[in-house]
Amino acid sequence: MATAQKSINLNGVAVNELLSTVEAVKATPSIAKFKFRIRNQWDEGSRNHSTVTTLRGANQEISHPAPFRLEADEPAILLGKDLAANPVEYLLHALASCLTTSMVYHASARGVQINAIESTFEGDLDLHGFLDLDPKVRKGYQGIRVNFKISADVPDDRLQEIAQLGTGHSPVYDSLTNGVPVSVTAERL
Amino acid sequence: MATAQKSINLNGVAVNELLSTVEAVKATPSIAKFKFRIRNQWDEGSRNHSTVTTLRGANQEISHPAPFRLEADEPAILLGKDLAANPVEYLLHALASCLTTSMVYHASARGVQINAIESTFEGDLDLHGFLDLDPKVRKGYQGIRVNFKISADVPDDRLQEIAQLGTGHSPVYDSLTNGVPVSVTAERL
Repeated sequence: MATAQKSINLNGVAVNELLSTVEAVKATPSIAKFKFRIRNQWDEGSRNHSTVTTLRGANQEISHPAPFRLEADEPAILLGKDLAANPVEYLLHALASCLTTSMVYHASARGVQINAIESTFEGDLDLHGFLDLDPKVRKGYQGIRVNFKISADVPDDRLQEIAQLGTGHSPVYDSLTNGVPVSVTAERL
Repeated sequence: MATAQKSINLNGVAVNELLSTVEAVKATPSIAKFKFRIRNQWDEGSRNHSTVTTLRGANQEISHPAPFRLEADEPAILLGKDLAANPVEYLLHALASCLTTSMVYHASARGVQINAIESTFEGDLDLHGFLDLDPKVRKGYQGIRVNFKISADVPDDRLQEIAQLGTGHSPVYDSLTNGVPVSVTAERL
């Protein structure tokens, strides 16, 4: 006899729904294919903004309840007005938020209670790349250092396992450490 | 006789300051080394936020006028409350904003007037990776498609050159397409 499905919430994650998703993907693999999208518009100088409105997943178009607007600017030392975080700071936020959520989801699926997670991210960039002053210096980050501080209901020797649930599953960590093919087309507006 | 330095603003970019920066880096290479940083804190379930407070550049510590707070969540279909963009959407914003700013700065340095830039970004993700259902499917984006629409004061045949000023200089594009080493440590909070 099947037991009634219980609503299990651990760390704010609906664990039964997470496990149901796994079973649903096994039954219908195509629902696992997602498309994420944004639209960007240049404002002036160093300022532009993105709008996040829809995504595709589980074979359907999905709208966010209201579009999210994400601003970008540069600090004054990089000739901006410092009205918003800059693109390489957003990249760190993407990485941080993805590692954290991946860690929490996979720890929850394993029944591990998390009390708190704090983390710091620092990346090194040498403008000799961006400014075309030295072809041996890359344009992008030369390296990123991450430190997690985790309070979880596990013995000391299992703390690294929790952290590795993040690095082992995070889509942004995988994208950033292993690279992603990006195709770019341009036309006249 | 030296001419007085003129303030040249093209596309909202202080071109004379950009060119001065190039000369300053040539004279003092160490000022080109930047460190960008964020701090992230887990809130609950799929929600966490980053704080962007300081950076290091030009051999000094620099504070943003006020810290920027960046929220992250997941859509309901990914078990979130859909209160903010999700990490892989932030990754697209980082890429979009960086390509756009890189294009505008380098076009301005070449004296090209830009009237408008709009762009769309779409990335493919298959949850078989994140959910550990197929080791052959990567966790991250399988590919990202970008389309730029540009209105600029150039003949048609130079429009692609303008777009390539973005891909050829953008720190996020370089980071994402070529990959970045990320070191992660974890300790008990």
